[in-house]
Amino acid sequence: MSEIRHRRGDGDGNEKVETAGESDHVDSEEEKVLEEKYVDELAKSLPQGTDKTPEILDSALSGLSSRWRNWVIRGIFTWLMIGGFCLLIYGGPLALMITVLCVQVKCFEEIINIGYAVYRVHGLPWFRSLSWYFLLTSNYFFYGENLIDYFGVVINRTDYLHFLVTYHRFISFSLYCVGFVWFVLSLVKRYYMRQFSLFAWTHVALLIVVTQSYLIIQNIFEGLIWFIVPVSMIICNDVMAYVFGFFFGKTPLIKLSPKKTWEGFIGGGFSTVLFGLVLSYMMSQYPYLVCPIEYSESLGRMTMDCEPSSLFRLQDYTPPQFLQPVMKVLGREKFNMYPFMIHSLALSIFSSVIGPFGGFFASGFKRAFKIKDFGDVIPGHGGIMDRFDCQFLMATFVNVYITSFIRTATPQKLLQQVYNLKPEQQLQLFYALKESLENRNILNMIP
Amino acid sequence: MSEIRHRRGDGDGNEKVETAGESDHVDSEEEKVLEEKYVDELAKSLPQGTDKTPEILDSALSGLSSRWRNWVIRGIFTWLMIGGFCLLIYGGPLALMITVLCVQVKCFEEIINIGYAVYRVHGLPWFRSLSWYFLLTSNYFFYGENLIDYFGVVINRTDYLHFLVTYHRFISFSLYCVGFVWFVLSLVKRYYMRQFSLFAWTHVALLIVVTQSYLIIQNIFEGLIWFIVPVSMIICNDVMAYVFGFFFGKTPLIKLSPKKTWEGFIGGGFSTVLFGLVLSYMMSQYPYLVCPIEYSESLGRMTMDCEPSSLFRLQDYTPPQFLQPVMKVLGREKFNMYPFMIHSLALSIFSSVIGPFGGFFASGFKRAFKIKDFGDVIPGHGGIMDRFDCQFLMATFVNVYITSFIRTATPQKLLQQVYNLKPEQQLQLFYALKESLENRNILNMIP
Repeated sequence: MSEIRHRRGDGDGNEKVETAGESDHVDSEEEKVLEEKYVDELAKSLPQGTDKTPEILDSALSGLSSRWRNWVIRGIFTWLMIGGFCLLIYGGPLALMITVLCVQVKCFEEIINIGYAVYRVHGLPWFRSLSWYFLLTSNYFFYGENLIDYFGVVINRTDYLHFLVTYHRFISFSLYCVGFVWFVLSLVKRYYMRQFSLFAWTHVALLIVVTQSYLIIQNIFEGLIWFIVPVSMIICNDVMAYVFGFFFGKTPLIKLSPKKTWEGFIGGGFSTVLFGLVLSYMMSQYPYLVCPIEYSESLGRMTMDCEPSSLFRLQDYTPPQFLQPVMKVLGREKFNMYPFMIHSLALSIFSSVIGPFGGFFASGFKRAFKIKDFGDVIPGHGGIMDRFDCQFLMATFVNVYITSFIRTATPQKLLQQVYNLKPEQQLQLFYALKESLENRNILNMIP
Repeated sequence: MSEIRHRRGDGDGNEKVETAGESDHVDSEEEKVLEEKYVDELAKSLPQGTDKTPEILDSALSGLSSRWRNWVIRGIFTWLMIGGFCLLIYGGPLALMITVLCVQVKCFEEIINIGYAVYRVHGLPWFRSLSWYFLLTSNYFFYGENLIDYFGVVINRTDYLHFLVTYHRFISFSLYCVGFVWFVLSLVKRYYMRQFSLFAWTHVALLIVVTQSYLIIQNIFEGLIWFIVPVSMIICNDVMAYVFGFFFGKTPLIKLSPKKTWEGFIGGGFSTVLFGLVLSYMMSQYPYLVCPIEYSESLGRMTMDCEPSSLFRLQDYTPPQFLQPVMKVLGREKFNMYPFMIHSLALSIFSSVIGPFGGFFASGFKRAFKIKDFGDVIPGHGGIMDRFDCQFLMATFVNVYITSFIRTATPQKLLQQVYNLKPEQQLQLFYALKESLENRNILNMIP
């Protein structure tokens, strides 16, 4: 009993019972004292990002003031991460996808751990297992959908896998139902409210983490450039906002994050746009980066060779009127660029205007639950989730952008679906299409 | 200040601050007293389902004991609802879809109102608007997806709507981003935790209410029978479990809902299976109920006329070995039935085994937040949400069931997508298909 009372007592609000009638009498001075006590206590139990630094670094930097030391440590680990990122790109799409999966699991863990700490359900049976079970089933569902989308033809050829494709949604839903029933059966009277809160918490975490990483993987399949450029933009925006803020920051931007300044926001924004244009120009030249990842019937394996689409072929642009003086100085009338660079402009504007709100959201969340960082995996940066807060919003944007402006239903994709039909249905479709094309006088055009 | 103190004081747990240090000293007797006080107080503020009864009924039933009166009132309104349901079916798919939309909005309102009461954010700026804004955008997204799926060809013909189709996801996402930024900007220091909790609450409500009603509407498009049969099954299971429980109920089924009994569960289950078979047999005969709702090119409007698919044509079945004695008594070797009845078996088993867990979940939720009903719209039943708790889970099941077992990609659907391509792409697809069919020696088959 003392265990339970302790748990109910030390700051947990969701049973809300013990103190309901009393707090009206507490005056505001007392309140403040209690608030401080409470924050201290919560801080002990919630996973705090400690500013743990490798010892070697610590002694090497002992001469610097704390502000500069933080700067250097953060800088070193920023470059380490960027280096790791480049290595991953070199490693190819499979390495990237595995990394996305690992990052996803780690982010989920960080969010869920905060939930556990906030609702103090460490003692409840099944809760940890349930969250991970839901992570598993939702990954099974989403990764399955991706695999079927991109490897459908191959998978269908294997009899035993064919079953998994055809009934994919049914299997996923059944798995989910098991979790749902399991949750209902695990309900314990005294903890109803906390259990439901944590159930909701788990689902919101899944919504953020799993669906977004599903979208990221779709982006990778569209061509590595659709992954690398947006991710780099967010990194660039983060870093440059920090740099501009560090050197020129004066005007606070938003109450939520007192460290963010207008100078950083604007400086970071302009840097990102420029950086995005340069990066896109450089990357558009490599088929390895611009080709979608597709299964090749003839090669019998995945391939990233292709005739680059028109987005990635240099074109002449006549600049708009107001830029004419600039062009005269340069002594040219037109300029050469990749159409992709125009899209990169849209991406960089999003990543520097809306992107930071992902960060503000995460800051607010951390403040709400009185934690400093989501974790302490990366020295100077905090948890994985602290670095990826803006990436999630960006990934969704890129995915939506691609579906709306870039990827129109291609004949290839549709053909794949046609080949999934039974032979007689394929024939039926063929004749119907033939008739329709003849009626519309299209078949008489030169192919 | 007193306003805020009141709000923080009377049972709100999410600021958790005032009382953190104190409650360790409260002993368990005091706790109980406080708990009762608290429940009373919460009960005042949360929307409680009052057992309000129309006055005429009340006086007419004044001679009955409360148990029987409740039974009669519940019965009357059950029949009224069933009657309304039949009227709606008679009204056709459009009436049904509008009803689904209304039910969805009402359920969302009920869930959100509980959230407001639990987190006491009545005074916070924007919160009500934000929830409704998110409801609007997610409906825009989901209903749009549905409309495009089923009316794509028609919509594409109108130039101005064509724009909405092509950029549907982009527009939806932009709308969502506006809400997201709005939320971040509306954050107010003292209320962070409650605002984030309510943000999560809103999203879980959207997940439950909007996505499911999107699935329900998809089911309707597959043919009214896919909507009517499952909905009726859940109603039947509810009613029969109540009836069996009322007359024979002895063994409690689950702690969560003390009124539910094994007798009701089992009796309801068998009734549902029988009812499902009979209902499916009756309904399979009407093209109005079994035909999918499709846009007819030739008629230029939506149509529900079709040659019923093989699911809805009587077939001879030889019963399995163990049923042979029964057949001998009946003097027949085979029996005639619609293949749909086998599917109805799967549906009724789900609705009577897993379905009730939707109800248990809702009960648990109500217990967690100490409310009696979600609302008080229907006398004797509570809120809309109280009647539809199981329907949501069922709708998802039916949708998954259809996609997995019934609807395979049809040549018609694919053809529609082909017609959305540019003419030269259609030609490209045509020749590629022709070549592939020739290579596989399919084209030489007799069409």
